[in-house]
Amino acid sequence: MSPHSKSLVTIDDLSHGEIDALFSLAQVMSDSLDEQFGLCRGKIMASLFFEPSTRTRLSFETAMHRLGGSVITASDIGATSLAKGESISDMARVIGSYVDIIVIRHPWEGAAKVVADYAGVPVINAGDGGHQHPTQTLCDLYTIKKEKGTIQGLKIALWGDLKYGRTIHSLIFALAKFGANILFCPSPGLEVPEHIIKKLTAEYGGKMAKYATLNQSVKNAFSFLDAVYLTPSSPHQLAMMSDLNIQFELESGVDALYVTRPQKERFTAGEESREQGDPFPVVDKKLLRDKAFRKTLVMHPLPRVDELAYEMDADPRSKYFEQAAHGVPVRMALIAMLLGVKEVPPSPDDITPALDYPRYEHDSGARCANPRCVSVQKTELKYLKPDFIIVNREPLTLRCVYCEHGVEPKYVASAEWHEGKTATKIYHHADSRWARKIRPENLIVFSSEDEAGAKGFKPSHDVLEHPSKSHH
Amino acid sequence: MSPHSKSLVTIDDLSHGEIDALFSLAQVMSDSLDEQFGLCRGKIMASLFFEPSTRTRLSFETAMHRLGGSVITASDIGATSLAKGESISDMARVIGSYVDIIVIRHPWEGAAKVVADYAGVPVINAGDGGHQHPTQTLCDLYTIKKEKGTIQGLKIALWGDLKYGRTIHSLIFALAKFGANILFCPSPGLEVPEHIIKKLTAEYGGKMAKYATLNQSVKNAFSFLDAVYLTPSSPHQLAMMSDLNIQFELESGVDALYVTRPQKERFTAGEESREQGDPFPVVDKKLLRDKAFRKTLVMHPLPRVDELAYEMDADPRSKYFEQAAHGVPVRMALIAMLLGVKEVPPSPDDITPALDYPRYEHDSGARCANPRCVSVQKTELKYLKPDFIIVNREPLTLRCVYCEHGVEPKYVASAEWHEGKTATKIYHHADSRWARKIRPENLIVFSSEDEAGAKGFKPSHDVLEHPSKSHH
Amino acid sequence: MSPHSKSLVTIDDLSHGEIDALFSLAQVMSDSLDEQFGLCRGKIMASLFFEPSTRTRLSFETAMHRLGGSVITASDIGATSLAKGESISDMARVIGSYVDIIVIRHPWEGAAKVVADYAGVPVINAGDGGHQHPTQTLCDLYTIKKEKGTIQGLKIALWGDLKYGRTIHSLIFALAKFGANILFCPSPGLEVPEHIIKKLTAEYGGKMAKYATLNQSVKNAFSFLDAVYLTPSSPHQLAMMSDLNIQFELESGVDALYVTRPQKERFTAGEESREQGDPFPVVDKKLLRDKAFRKTLVMHPLPRVDELAYEMDADPRSKYFEQAAHGVPVRMALIAMLLGVKEVPPSPDDITPALDYPRYEHDSGARCANPRCVSVQKTELKYLKPDFIIVNREPLTLRCVYCEHGVEPKYVASAEWHEGKTATKIYHHADSRWARKIRPENLIVFSSEDEAGAKGFKPSHDVLEHPSKSHH
Repeated sequence: MSPHSKSLVTIDDLSHGEIDALFSLAQVMSDSLDEQFGLCRGKIMASLFFEPSTRTRLSFETAMHRLGGSVITASDIGATSLAKGESISDMARVIGSYVDIIVIRHPWEGAAKVVADYAGVPVINAGDGGHQHPTQTLCDLYTIKKEKGTIQGLKIALWGDLKYGRTIHSLIFALAKFGANILFCPSPGLEVPEHIIKKLTAEYGGKMAKYATLNQSVKNAFSFLDAVYLTPSSPHQLAMMSDLNIQFELESGVDALYVTRPQKERFTAGEESREQGDPFPVVDKKLLRDKAFRKTLVMHPLPRVDELAYEMDADPRSKYFEQAAHGVPVRMALIAMLLGVKEVPPSPDDITPALDYPRYEHDSGARCANPRCVSVQKTELKYLKPDFIIVNREPLTLRCVYCEHGVEPKYVASAEWHEGKTATKIYHHADSRWARKIRPENLIVFSSEDEAGAKGFKPSHDVLEHPSKSHH
Repeated sequence: MSPHSKSLVTIDDLSHGEIDALFSLAQVMSDSLDEQFGLCRGKIMASLFFEPSTRTRLSFETAMHRLGGSVITASDIGATSLAKGESISDMARVIGSYVDIIVIRHPWEGAAKVVADYAGVPVINAGDGGHQHPTQTLCDLYTIKKEKGTIQGLKIALWGDLKYGRTIHSLIFALAKFGANILFCPSPGLEVPEHIIKKLTAEYGGKMAKYATLNQSVKNAFSFLDAVYLTPSSPHQLAMMSDLNIQFELESGVDALYVTRPQKERFTAGEESREQGDPFPVVDKKLLRDKAFRKTLVMHPLPRVDELAYEMDADPRSKYFEQAAHGVPVRMALIAMLLGVKEVPPSPDDITPALDYPRYEHDSGARCANPRCVSVQKTELKYLKPDFIIVNREPLTLRCVYCEHGVEPKYVASAEWHEGKTATKIYHHADSRWARKIRPENLIVFSSEDEAGAKGFKPSHDVLEHPSKSHH
Repeated sequence: MSPHSKSLVTIDDLSHGEIDALFSLAQVMSDSLDEQFGLCRGKIMASLFFEPSTRTRLSFETAMHRLGGSVITASDIGATSLAKGESISDMARVIGSYVDIIVIRHPWEGAAKVVADYAGVPVINAGDGGHQHPTQTLCDLYTIKKEKGTIQGLKIALWGDLKYGRTIHSLIFALAKFGANILFCPSPGLEVPEHIIKKLTAEYGGKMAKYATLNQSVKNAFSFLDAVYLTPSSPHQLAMMSDLNIQFELESGVDALYVTRPQKERFTAGEESREQGDPFPVVDKKLLRDKAFRKTLVMHPLPRVDELAYEMDADPRSKYFEQAAHGVPVRMALIAMLLGVKEVPPSPDDITPALDYPRYEHDSGARCANPRCVSVQKTELKYLKPDFIIVNREPLTLRCVYCEHGVEPKYVASAEWHEGKTATKIYHHADSRWARKIRPENLIVFSSEDEAGAKGFKPSHDVLEHPSKSHH
């Protein structure tokens, strides 16, 4: 792990090689559990849960105890400091001055990043709203790798609530990073959010195929299939892959079926009523009777409700209890790495280069539109400024560094005007050819013509002629 | 402790000899508290409280810490996994994969048995609804034995809420097992439940005498006495004991007065109004001024409300604070035994044979009627089947293995018909002579004639002639 | 620490010398944190929070873990034992029989004293209602002393809610004890309560000057100043200090500005509406731009809401995060001292003599008028008697030993009458010359003439002639 990022906020904070090293360490720790006691002697972990989650919290705390460390816990924290109107950064600074490592769960998306920015000690994101839950993803990947030997090239079907499950969002990026192909089988109305799909196709270079393009024989076997995401096994290879290839891939079955429960606590009223009217099929022996599922791992992050039948518990394909159990050694390894009590040599063949997007340098126009984002909360506005990176130029897309939701501004200008290099302060359509010429460090965005006007910019000819629609 | 039952769900899980051994170990640990630290080094206990109970929880956690072990706690658990609709067995499997031992308190009766069945690690019942609270009972017995040297033959008066106190229910069976005589002094309307009395007389061979049979001089001294339960000091001896003997026993006073608070949180509306109208007398110095109470231990499981006067605190007969303090060494000894870090040799003169009732083998007719039983809860029905043992034939009584409530089915049949040994499928009155001939493994029960009919059985002549009443 | 008072209930429980010794130990522990691990091996601390306070609780628990001790926690305790109607003394006795030291936070004023009286182990008050929060005060003093080298003679401005902040009340007495001069800058309506002022001037011999007496130039710089409290640097010196001296003191600036948030959760309805209409100024760079504040430490017990601007965080004068961080070594030192694992030699030049007021010996007339006092709560009335000390004779003032609120009874009598030394049972005005002659051990007080009459006392001539007003 690089010395400047000793925290795990999103799964992207770990490279392919770091994850491999982590898994090796987890395996060693699992094989010699008793020998690990004392490794973190004298170290203290703060377990701060602003949302209840007994399972995840106890897994982290067990991990720290197995390492011989101490734990302080606040599982009732939502009712205390928050009620007094305290900001997350103040809490992070104070607790960070007490302990050696912080585990944080919080309902606001991006909250873990704020804690990591201010705590001064390593921070682990144990779930921040609908954003990410990276250690769950590590347990998932570890389980798959332990059972199948590798993740690259596997076909993993994701089943159920693909909209609200943060587990699912972290997992999707991790699977893509490791080169797995992903099948989306969402409950109706609970599809993968658009911003996830965009990040996936833009950054991981894979290809998305919709169910409609597949032929009937595949449709029969994968009756709930909504879309397939394929990752390239080598650069640029994917562009050549035809729908026939996808079908061929699918006909040989899936390697893992990852089931999730409907996250009803996050449902809108409309989603709740749909849920009651049209239940999604239960994963049971009947559903998995096809020989294509003969070697399929059945996984679930738990807790389950009705989406996964108890009759599967005794089925050798079921791995969900192992998945939960793996949480302890995986988190032990992570804690040990972040605390630096275990050296993890960087893998020489680390295939995931760090993504290095240009930062959006100006304080105007960009405001996160996600109401659950930490950056727009009343207590946090006092000290947090909007902070974005520029992840795409066509269409121009800024991404909030906290919750990772995307923003597509409609108008842009260049900051160079004030240095005398441009004669006038003019703004353009974000997708015009003028816009594309502006260097990232000079880019200024506006969400509306009014906003641009208020800052003293005038519309370009292009904008004047085609106010609501641009040409290229 | 037998290798196949390394859990303490009910007080019956421990034999007389095991309890004696446990008490010896508790005494040793109490005498050399500092030397016990480190005994459970590296072991982790999960303390799972689905109902709040600061006192009991802290006692268990103190015990584990005194042994040098670690503790993970969920005292807010009712608001978390349960709210997400998770079953007890899933929770038990997951937490069981994290830790070395589980302590569980749950409002559903029989919940601790489910945890013990699924966790894969030793489980201690810290209270399951109104069912049992066996470690409280161990502390009670330990206190009595420490003060009086023995339990056999003592007279123990139970005072107050004998209906809802699970403490009381566990204690009654334990006292009977150790050969103590029990005096019931219930608050009006809070008498010992019928199923407890039945189990007591049927299985422990004691005799119940009602207050009405006693003469006036005894009535004066024990003015609140409702019933006396006497255990046999040797087999079959009790049947010969006359009411005169009972009186003689009582006139020499009681060895301990065990006071309980009204469990108002479990009261029905009717019980609440009665409570306000007619308060039960307070245990104070005046009540205990009779010389028959000169050496009476005053006990209470705490917390008290108004039923036990503060003036008793300085009275040398009062032992309730010692009773609470003994909780730590007793639980230390229990944890050490269950984790196997202390060998407890089985006592050679273990006088309590394991009760070995035949199981009810069929999946019809028997359904637990206790609405607080774990086996009838919505989340548990998905995987738990009704499970009963046949504890009596006259009247035919099945007992739920979870909550231990009894069921007395009205009609029975034999399963042998289908093997061609009986010509017809016929059902009988449960108390008919035909019924008594059916071997336990063939017994099928029905709660109604309709149910029997629905299963394809026809009424016997006896049933036809006397549909609602049987002859013998 | 004296052997008979191994608890910290109020800041007065520690002498000047003990606090100095504690700070030296805290500094040593802070400098060699890792070496302290193991100092409290095998010791258990109970952390009992009847009111939520994540920050304080985690600070104490971190301190115990850094010493290698164990912790049992009840942060949900308000919902459990209290709901069952248990008294604080019962809880204290039981938990005291489990553990080695207790940390208690409770909403009732004086609750920590009750715990200390009954637990049988050292007790630390972590906040009892609006009464005291002595360990916060220790952290505050430690921070000031570390930054300024001394506390004596410093000028400390207290800012914001001086009415409800228990932090403030503990701090005021401690600052006076150490010889600091205090400037009161309360938000309107949130002035220091009268009983605090009385105790301060009566017992610490300082002088209170109101803002109105200051000249305009000082008023400009300290525009929010309400009152100044000056402690004597040597006995009787203060009486000679003129307003000119005060002005001179102020013109050289303040050494520390201690900011507090409005404790809105304790506000009355009237205070809430005032708060919304007329906000108190925020402490920010502009407010502190005057050169008189150049070396002013900016302090805050946290959490802050809006009263302290985030722009101060990067200002070198800001010490509030250090203040929070110091909580761990200060509490480590305190725990180690109370548990006796670190010997703290009493300072030879301990300048604070123990205050030794006569006790009010009679059980009539005196009843604490503070509705938040532990002694008037329903569950505690069963065993707690009113308990007062006589802290002043002119006017006659009794102080509740629990919450330290004062009572000024209107009528008094002498208990000597019944020994035949007085001919009649007569009561007097409390401020009459007869009243002043009664020796403390004979003093009987009455809150009304009716009460005196009910006890069989007759009015003196003085009372008959001047029923509602006395002469001297």
